[in-house]
Amino acid sequence: MTRAPIPDLAPGERRLEGAVAHYLARVLRLRAGDAFVAFDPATAREATAVTVWIDPDSITVRFGPLRDGLARAAHELTWIQGLAKADKCDAVVRDATELGAARVLVAFTRRSVVKLDAARASERQARWARIASEAARQCGRSEAPLIDVPCPWSEALARAVDADRAREWARFCLWEQATDPLAPPLFEALQRGAPIAFACGAEGGLDLGEVDEARSGGWLVVSLGPWVLRTETVAAAVLGAVRVWGGLAPPQTPPPSSDSG
Amino acid sequence: MTRAPIPDLAPGERRLEGAVAHYLARVLRLRAGDAFVAFDPATAREATAVTVWIDPDSITVRFGPLRDGLARAAHELTWIQGLAKADKCDAVVRDATELGAARVLVAFTRRSVVKLDAARASERQARWARIASEAARQCGRSEAPLIDVPCPWSEALARAVDADRAREWARFCLWEQATDPLAPPLFEALQRGAPIAFACGAEGGLDLGEVDEARSGGWLVVSLGPWVLRTETVAAAVLGAVRVWGGLAPPQTPPPSSDSG
Repeated sequence: MTRAPIPDLAPGERRLEGAVAHYLARVLRLRAGDAFVAFDPATAREATAVTVWIDPDSITVRFGPLRDGLARAAHELTWIQGLAKADKCDAVVRDATELGAARVLVAFTRRSVVKLDAARASERQARWARIASEAARQCGRSEAPLIDVPCPWSEALARAVDADRAREWARFCLWEQATDPLAPPLFEALQRGAPIAFACGAEGGLDLGEVDEARSGGWLVVSLGPWVLRTETVAAAVLGAVRVWGGLAPPQTPPPSSDSG
Repeated sequence: MTRAPIPDLAPGERRLEGAVAHYLARVLRLRAGDAFVAFDPATAREATAVTVWIDPDSITVRFGPLRDGLARAAHELTWIQGLAKADKCDAVVRDATELGAARVLVAFTRRSVVKLDAARASERQARWARIASEAARQCGRSEAPLIDVPCPWSEALARAVDADRAREWARFCLWEQATDPLAPPLFEALQRGAPIAFACGAEGGLDLGEVDEARSGGWLVVSLGPWVLRTETVAAAVLGAVRVWGGLAPPQTPPPSSDSG
């Protein structure tokens, strides 16, 4: 069934306007009487929805009772991406959503060519949040990752893990000049079900100061192998490794007994 | 040092014309006296090279003795990609090169929207081979994957593994309706150092007949998890997993004793 992201999803009838109405009526081309699955990307709750009425500028929808979305990510998984040129961060957000990231932080690094003032940083955050919602819809994931407003590298390293549980987090800074391979400590972290954060530079890589900052903040500085990946490939490759591994790990919680009906 | 792919690399002086000359003089902007690393993407051999003379339509280069390129892929690794729309296969070839594939086969599937006659299939093969060479140069890999001329799905399944060693190959057909996870048999294959082939459909996925064909040809039909990936994400995610988890496997052969000098 067609899926559509609906912010602040709640049961009952509601008149939707603006971008959401446009999306339902023009992009999904829903008509009165059409049913679809509404999901709230922020909470991973979903509901069956029926289109009641369509006006030129609004659409009225009746939402059924809320239920937990089933296709939720298994891991607490944060991706820090150095701000890269053109639409590379768009691609990283899309890949990270498909591959199960719970949070994406874009960080300004010394070699980031693009500079953003506060207004443009906040525009980008909104843009990436839309891309994440849309990617979640496309792939059938019940939630979208949280997208932070872009911030400096050191702030991103600090924000990536929640302070009171910092010791539980496994943290990996991917650096092309590192020599220790990612696999052994990642394997260990996945086996103990630890929350995981990764950090990756922009096109030009990280400078020594940034790598030192990560290291002294408790991040393991690790290598992905004998040659260099483009920055926009790293997220898909590393989060792909986590996703494939997830097929080995025991489920985090037993599946709920199904309510038939 | 700058790296450039040179077909049929051999020691000695050579006058290069056409696309190679254009690439060295216009794209890399080499001048007389400039040194660079020449590598032959088909053989993974490389040589130090010096530009001797530049004419409007040709460039003369002196190549030093050949040596084995060091950044070679560790695994025999084949990727079958269902022919997808627009430039998606370009992206798959680029990702597969970075992530260590040894061979990429694009296959016509029943749900492939794009149709190619023989002439256009051969044009595409040439295009993807150029993209693979360029991606190998960019990431510093010593060789490019072999790119086959696009062919029907059943032919691609047969061609993906060499017939006389077919039993050694681990073969995985990725299908969104499969229920067995990829991870356990993939880990087993990586641990025993088996050559590995993957097959993945185009946007619309594989039809039942194609999946049955793979299964009866000895391919395990496996799932990547609880929601669907875009076809262009699958290669990066799965080959990324092979690259990361390959870092756990014991080295295939002991490193050669270094000839110092």
